Amino acid sequence: MNLLFLNGPNLNLLGQRQPEIYGDTTLAAIEAAVRARANERGTEIDFRQSNLEGELVTWIQEAQGSTDAIVLNAAGYTHTSVAIRDAIAAGQVPVIEIHISNIHAREEFRHTSLIAPVCAGQICGFGLDSYLLGIEAALTL
Amino acid sequence: MNLLFLNGPNLNLLGQRQPEIYGDTTLAAIEAAVRARANERGTEIDFRQSNLEGELVTWIQEAQGSTDAIVLNAAGYTHTSVAIRDAIAAGQVPVIEIHISNIHAREEFRHTSLIAPVCAGQICGFGLDSYLLGIEAALTL
Amino acid sequence: MNLLFLNGPNLNLLGQRQPEIYGDTTLAAIEAAVRARANERGTEIDFRQSNLEGELVTWIQEAQGSTDAIVLNAAGYTHTSVAIRDAIAAGQVPVIEIHISNIHAREEFRHTSLIAPVCAGQICGFGLDSYLLGIEAALTL
Amino acid sequence: MNLLFLNGPNLNLLGQRQPEIYGDTTLAAIEAAVRARANERGTEIDFRQSNLEGELVTWIQEAQGSTDAIVLNAAGYTHTSVAIRDAIAAGQVPVIEIHISNIHAREEFRHTSLIAPVCAGQICGFGLDSYLLGIEAALTL
Amino acid sequence: MNLLFLNGPNLNLLGQRQPEIYGDTTLAAIEAAVRARANERGTEIDFRQSNLEGELVTWIQEAQGSTDAIVLNAAGYTHTSVAIRDAIAAGQVPVIEIHISNIHAREEFRHTSLIAPVCAGQICGFGLDSYLLGIEAALTL
Amino acid sequence: MNLLFLNGPNLNLLGQRQPEIYGDTTLAAIEAAVRARANERGTEIDFRQSNLEGELVTWIQEAQGSTDAIVLNAAGYTHTSVAIRDAIAAGQVPVIEIHISNIHAREEFRHTSLIAPVCAGQICGFGLDSYLLGIEAALTL
Amino acid sequence: MNLLFLNGPNLNLLGQRQPEIYGDTTLAAIEAAVRARANERGTEIDFRQSNLEGELVTWIQEAQGSTDAIVLNAAGYTHTSVAIRDAIAAGQVPVIEIHISNIHAREEFRHTSLIAPVCAGQICGFGLDSYLLGIEAALTL
Amino acid sequence: MNLLFLNGPNLNLLGQRQPEIYGDTTLAAIEAAVRARANERGTEIDFRQSNLEGELVTWIQEAQGSTDAIVLNAAGYTHTSVAIRDAIAAGQVPVIEIHISNIHAREEFRHTSLIAPVCAGQICGFGLDSYLLGIEAALTL
Amino acid sequence: MNLLFLNGPNLNLLGQRQPEIYGDTTLAAIEAAVRARANERGTEIDFRQSNLEGELVTWIQEAQGSTDAIVLNAAGYTHTSVAIRDAIAAGQVPVIEIHISNIHAREEFRHTSLIAPVCAGQICGFGLDSYLLGIEAALTL
Amino acid sequence: MNLLFLNGPNLNLLGQRQPEIYGDTTLAAIEAAVRARANERGTEIDFRQSNLEGELVTWIQEAQGSTDAIVLNAAGYTHTSVAIRDAIAAGQVPVIEIHISNIHAREEFRHTSLIAPVCAGQICGFGLDSYLLGIEAALTL
Amino acid sequence: MNLLFLNGPNLNLLGQRQPEIYGDTTLAAIEAAVRARANERGTEIDFRQSNLEGELVTWIQEAQGSTDAIVLNAAGYTHTSVAIRDAIAAGQVPVIEIHISNIHAREEFRHTSLIAPVCAGQICGFGLDSYLLGIEAALTL
Amino acid sequence: MNLLFLNGPNLNLLGQRQPEIYGDTTLAAIEAAVRARANERGTEIDFRQSNLEGELVTWIQEAQGSTDAIVLNAAGYTHTSVAIRDAIAAGQVPVIEIHISNIHAREEFRHTSLIAPVCAGQICGFGLDSYLLGIEAALTL
Repeated sequence: MNLLFLNGPNLNLLGQRQPEIYGDTTLAAIEAAVRARANERGTEIDFRQSNLEGELVTWIQEAQGSTDAIVLNAAGYTHTSVAIRDAIAAGQVPVIEIHISNIHAREEFRHTSLIAPVCAGQICGFGLDSYLLGIEAALTL
Repeated sequence: MNLLFLNGPNLNLLGQRQPEIYGDTTLAAIEAAVRARANERGTEIDFRQSNLEGELVTWIQEAQGSTDAIVLNAAGYTHTSVAIRDAIAAGQVPVIEIHISNIHAREEFRHTSLIAPVCAGQICGFGLDSYLLGIEAALTL
Repeated sequence: MNLLFLNGPNLNLLGQRQPEIYGDTTLAAIEAAVRARANERGTEIDFRQSNLEGELVTWIQEAQGSTDAIVLNAAGYTHTSVAIRDAIAAGQVPVIEIHISNIHAREEFRHTSLIAPVCAGQICGFGLDSYLLGIEAALTL
Repeated sequence: MNLLFLNGPNLNLLGQRQPEIYGDTTLAAIEAAVRARANERGTEIDFRQSNLEGELVTWIQEAQGSTDAIVLNAAGYTHTSVAIRDAIAAGQVPVIEIHISNIHAREEFRHTSLIAPVCAGQICGFGLDSYLLGIEAALTL
Repeated sequence: MNLLFLNGPNLNLLGQRQPEIYGDTTLAAIEAAVRARANERGTEIDFRQSNLEGELVTWIQEAQGSTDAIVLNAAGYTHTSVAIRDAIAAGQVPVIEIHISNIHAREEFRHTSLIAPVCAGQICGFGLDSYLLGIEAALTL
Repeated sequence: MNLLFLNGPNLNLLGQRQPEIYGDTTLAAIEAAVRARANERGTEIDFRQSNLEGELVTWIQEAQGSTDAIVLNAAGYTHTSVAIRDAIAAGQVPVIEIHISNIHAREEFRHTSLIAPVCAGQICGFGLDSYLLGIEAALTL
Repeated sequence: MNLLFLNGPNLNLLGQRQPEIYGDTTLAAIEAAVRARANERGTEIDFRQSNLEGELVTWIQEAQGSTDAIVLNAAGYTHTSVAIRDAIAAGQVPVIEIHISNIHAREEFRHTSLIAPVCAGQICGFGLDSYLLGIEAALTL
Repeated sequence: MNLLFLNGPNLNLLGQRQPEIYGDTTLAAIEAAVRARANERGTEIDFRQSNLEGELVTWIQEAQGSTDAIVLNAAGYTHTSVAIRDAIAAGQVPVIEIHISNIHAREEFRHTSLIAPVCAGQICGFGLDSYLLGIEAALTL
Repeated sequence: MNLLFLNGPNLNLLGQRQPEIYGDTTLAAIEAAVRARANERGTEIDFRQSNLEGELVTWIQEAQGSTDAIVLNAAGYTHTSVAIRDAIAAGQVPVIEIHISNIHAREEFRHTSLIAPVCAGQICGFGLDSYLLGIEAALTL
Repeated sequence: MNLLFLNGPNLNLLGQRQPEIYGDTTLAAIEAAVRARANERGTEIDFRQSNLEGELVTWIQEAQGSTDAIVLNAAGYTHTSVAIRDAIAAGQVPVIEIHISNIHAREEFRHTSLIAPVCAGQICGFGLDSYLLGIEAALTL
Repeated sequence: MNLLFLNGPNLNLLGQRQPEIYGDTTLAAIEAAVRARANERGTEIDFRQSNLEGELVTWIQEAQGSTDAIVLNAAGYTHTSVAIRDAIAAGQVPVIEIHISNIHAREEFRHTSLIAPVCAGQICGFGLDSYLLGIEAALTL
Repeated sequence: MNLLFLNGPNLNLLGQRQPEIYGDTTLAAIEAAVRARANERGTEIDFRQSNLEGELVTWIQEAQGSTDAIVLNAAGYTHTSVAIRDAIAAGQVPVIEIHISNIHAREEFRHTSLIAPVCAGQICGFGLDSYLLGIEAALTL
């Protein structure tokens, strides 16, 4: 099985960024934990981050055919990007939406995810573990 | 570790109820799968269902002290119950909100969860596996 | 033919309750009139009232298999209960929504029925006769 | 007793028009069924259709004095016509609002009836039988 | 004079529940203080709590005839229960709405009380003293 | 000077129609009063009523060139007719909007006049005198 | 007959203030025209202006008993003052709301008049003539 | 091929009506240009205008069977007519919605077209050429 | 203990003003009752009324240091005054918001109190007794 | 004449992407058809696609001076991009907004185009032919 | 150059008032700093504070002719005063809106400034320095 | 001191772009003026522009550690970018939001700045001088 982990804007700052919300694990540490768990589960991992909405769109497009599922933390684009939503809907690869924080417990504008209606499901609020639960969820699809 | 699984109204109908949305697994089958996974993980499980908002409130209250986490599928009360929200906020036991279907992909009134802001996190859209992911999430708390 | 009449909260007060809105017929008198009309039409009747949302949910669930149609006056739960809505949608038995008063001519919050979209149809504003029209409507289904 | 049945825009197309919503009975067949039932009940019937909002207004005005009740399917004007609402409110003849489909289960803009607050009651969702229930309702006024 | 004190969901947790909002007095201590004050004023007290919306509805119904006023802390049902509102409106006994916290200074959804329009008045924000002020207010009716 | 008085739907019912709102003067009596005042002022009057939105549109169009001002009581179309608004905006003849009742003191949907932004001004709430003030206003244009 | 003309904030600037909206007549010139017309009609006039909301409230209060009608141009307070609304509702003297410009054709926030529902009627859009029409309207009350 | 061009209220005023918005071409000139282009394309044309909502409804109904497509400029009824929407949805003939001006660049209430969801497509903003593009679009259906 | 009672606009009219809402007690009678009760409780009272928003702001400012609590009936400014809200928040003296009528049972715009979120609590609906309950509440602070 | 065709995010997927909405023509096939038609009309074509909002902004900027009109299918950015709107408004080159599907018949968030108010006009719903109509429209500017 | 600094309600409390929001500088200290900077810049300063909306209106009116620019911190009236807005719009003197705190980062009702649309510009969030930046901004006008 | 000036989409067009809104100064001229003023103040300047949302995000991230403050004109992304907001919140460097035009006086959608709540303050409406005031503001932090 092949999984693509996509990380949106500012997730490269994890560990430094508002630790009271996002914890103090860096994105590299998350990637390591994801690779370790994937290894246990016999799964291939591709793990990327971009600050560019359009690059995330392109990566979702390119995943078609070569990936079994995408685990997507779209960060700030979660609430504003019709382009990412359309990229998900345009493809066949199931997408699992994850968030480190519980977006429903934060500012009102974070309660609405434009991409959720075209994703398989949503996991949020478990910090680093949202990523590992994303692997488990992908294995059930 | 002790986990309490609470199921809200109409979940006793699973298997017969709108299978295009909820699948054809019965609540008994879900309970069996949950018990099997809990067994593997060395976790004690209590698994209940009620159609009464007030009974769910009472069960959340009673879990204080004797339970490590609650995995809650509040079903229809997710969107209307301040009483359940207050019961969660009043206690110390972390609550993991789960849903069988992806509530964000259904009718507009299902997009808002009144209980989400006081839960640890939310998992939705993975059918029976939302329950199993609930165990995994609880183990990380 | 078997019909189940379900009455929601405060309908046990009919006759005493705001007669300028609900008239001065008691629920017992309505039941008698319903039974008389059902008798004429050769229909079996079960007639119940509850103040508990969850009990109404349970009765709707239990009606599956043994009832041909439900005539439901959900009273105050009409405007707030996703749980009753889901119970109706989960079953196969058609439900006819009735109201004694014309809910569209009263306070704004009574104009929206959460259950209407999953009912067969709605009859409101005819007092006691809303119940009798409910029998007639059920016979046409 | 004298009843006036008024039909709004596009109801002349019944039978051809979106049969999945409106069924395949023509307006002529509905009129025949209405006349048959009225005959049984010893009631006089006048049955008309117009695509013109103003003509419906005029017919409601002219019914004053000569008609005991109006059974009104205002169709598309239900949601937009203050003029028809004012015609009903201006007169003494009670008006029973009917709809073939369950308007509360369709597009959002059909959930609000501008005329409902000035009608005696509303019956919707029973197809052809909404008309016959309209006669029964009129006989109870 | 006879007063009925009704307490809604989660008020049995007072003392443990979010003391920064609700203080550290238990419901038993509140009941004791209420009884002491009532004694001074020569008033009979009945003091109850329930997590069930429908049980609160029933208690309000049963108070008719035997109670001079109800002091009601409907807690979470304040913002969601048309059924409790209708029970109040259906009876003759005046109801005084009280809250421990200042509901207008908390989350937006707590600013609207569905029951306020049918109560005699509202007292909120004075902690335990909201109950004692409730007695004083009842004595003035 | 030439003035055109246009009356919208249901104004032909004045005198019979909800006298607590519209008074007991008939439209004929209003026309007589208008003609008397116009006579005093040396003004020619054309005075018409229609229940048809499109006919009012046509009359506004035809007034171009031959009329100095239109005094328009659009009644129910005031709140719903973009067509009448466009007819006014399309022409050069100033239009004075009048209402018998104070529309701002009635139902919420009557507070918004779609035609007001393209009229010269608005006079409402003075009963029959709204028409006479309409003449006075027209003479000042 | 005694009439009180009250002018709200910034009306003392008329003539200099945005002449494309308010014309180039000064408040003194309006007062003169009002006095001339009142003279013709045998009416006593009191004519005042204030920038203070509370002073307008006080003047409305003081008019009770000594004035037959108030012609009120509340200017900016029209859209924000519950205090002036309450002063009008508290008294017996009828109030005629006037505006120089057509408030319904300007910014959205000017379309809603908080005082309109408690006034006898509204006249707007006729410049200086709104004041003279105010006298005519007052004479009809 | 047979095309029906329907023009709504006030389009008979083109050329005189607000030329800064609608240009200075008359409806007759548009009809001539449409006929010329249709001729080139070998298409039959029927070209009509009405100020009556109900007449437009009737024309759309009558076009069934004898017309291949309707090019509809519903003008002011675009934003208010459920009746025209229902007439379009009730038929089989595809409808192309056109507007002379760019309705999305004008007042907010013109941004919503009630008929657009049941039309094949929308062309707006090209003046007279919106009609000619309507022919081209119809030829592609 | 020192208490400051502040009364907002139009409260000087009590007794004459809409007695069906505000009762027939004058403000002088309320002041007398307040002084009598304060006397019993050994409390000093300062009792004022103003129609000026800014004067109320100033009085709240001046109370800092010399007053133990303010009992404030802000009347019409309750719903519109950020300035009074800021004056309360800027000081240390607790403010008890009172209203004679039940503001939650009146017009929609009276349901929102801009000052409530910065007050200690709210008492409304008890007529003259709202003032006396204000003293009792102040004594508990 | 020089035309620039700009295609926004995910349009490179045409042919594979939700063919029930977008048809089965690829973007390459559309480009070929556009070039063929442009050839017939003697027009030069530049045809590009990007997933990056900022790149579309840059291309619109660069078109100034060298292009006669832009035909823009902004896809998902249509509903979210103030940056593209500002780029259009900042330039002199007219922009024709096109869409393959009828955006007004899809999800609510697609009904509002942020760019429409600064475009010359809009063409939507005609599939591949929306592009060809875009050429025809450009030739009329 | 002559500058008028106007301060709205409660700004006289600066230094004591919520120092976590407004800092601990008094209004006198701000005036001193403003005078010092004005001195450096060769500018005359008039510096005033009022709690009365109407007095601020009057001061803005009186500044016409004698002042080059107004630096206005309208405090609580920023969000509620059409009267101040109209005073600014009525005059020729440019107004610079300033705030000590960042109003866009506080309660929702502070995000909207009714006066901003008629001011030259807005400076907020820099504490005492918002006043000094106000001078610099005024010098550039 | 080190300052980073970031300019969002379309600001490279200044001088040509809608000079009635943005003036006729080019971005190069602004940069020169900023450098001159910075020189006077002994401040280092980095000055950049990008049309790409993600590039602005990256620049804000990279400024951490090496920059004392950012002066940000986010242009069109001001109103739509959660990603830029999150980049600001994630860092320690204070950000001063500036705009050339008074955004509160333009289209409604420009009144809300998504980034304002996480910036130190906002300066808008002073044209080129907004940039120079940005330097002055930065020096005060």
